[in-house]
Amino acid sequence: MSGGSAGGFDADPPYYAVIFTSRRMAGDDAAYGDMAARMIELAATQPGFLGFDSAREGVGITVSYWRDEDSIAAWRRDVEHRLAQRAGRERWYADFSVRVARVERAYGFSRNDWRNLHGSSGV
Amino acid sequence: MSGGSAGGFDADPPYYAVIFTSRRMAGDDAAYGDMAARMIELAATQPGFLGFDSAREGVGITVSYWRDEDSIAAWRRDVEHRLAQRAGRERWYADFSVRVARVERAYGFSRNDWRNLHGSSGV
Repeated sequence: MSGGSAGGFDADPPYYAVIFTSRRMAGDDAAYGDMAARMIELAATQPGFLGFDSAREGVGITVSYWRDEDSIAAWRRDVEHRLAQRAGRERWYADFSVRVARVERAYGFSRNDWRNLHGSSGV
Repeated sequence: MSGGSAGGFDADPPYYAVIFTSRRMAGDDAAYGDMAARMIELAATQPGFLGFDSAREGVGITVSYWRDEDSIAAWRRDVEHRLAQRAGRERWYADFSVRVARVERAYGFSRNDWRNLHGSSGV
């Protein structure tokens, strides 16, 4: 699941990434999917939200991108999000990790044409 | 596919994350899987490599973690890795994005017990 082309959105570094990696508890997949989709829907309405990518293959990885740390702090405090965080600990996850990172440079490739995503062309 | 528990490895921020998101071209899955597994195997031998998580569900997301930017630069220049980068553009990917980010804080939850992964407990 992605906000567009892989990792694609229009923003220049620096911006912030929240890297959420998780392992699910077994079962209740439909309810989990509803919650996860709702959290993406809700995050997308938050000031400073830039985009996200998400995939689960054993481990789940969701990376959301934010304009600044204040945007991340406000999303952390969102009431509905806080309830989902609690449910995550109580019901959904065997374990998870959250990392907050400052994106310093970014670039990309498209089959259609090279594009440089707002930054150094080297990693 | 993961280096351990979700996002789990023993390092204190600050460290670096390379967030690689991609969309595959159709076909040749076995050869792609061999290349991807080999790149993880090779990355794990590089100085400064800390760990990784990877999942593909439509979009593919691989996040590799590194001690510092010099480690990332050295991995970028690795000869076998450079060949894989070229094959990625020529054969494997419809599009991809690479973001280099400085991890500033990290925390986590485990079903077995709370643990704070080396940093602020708030996102």
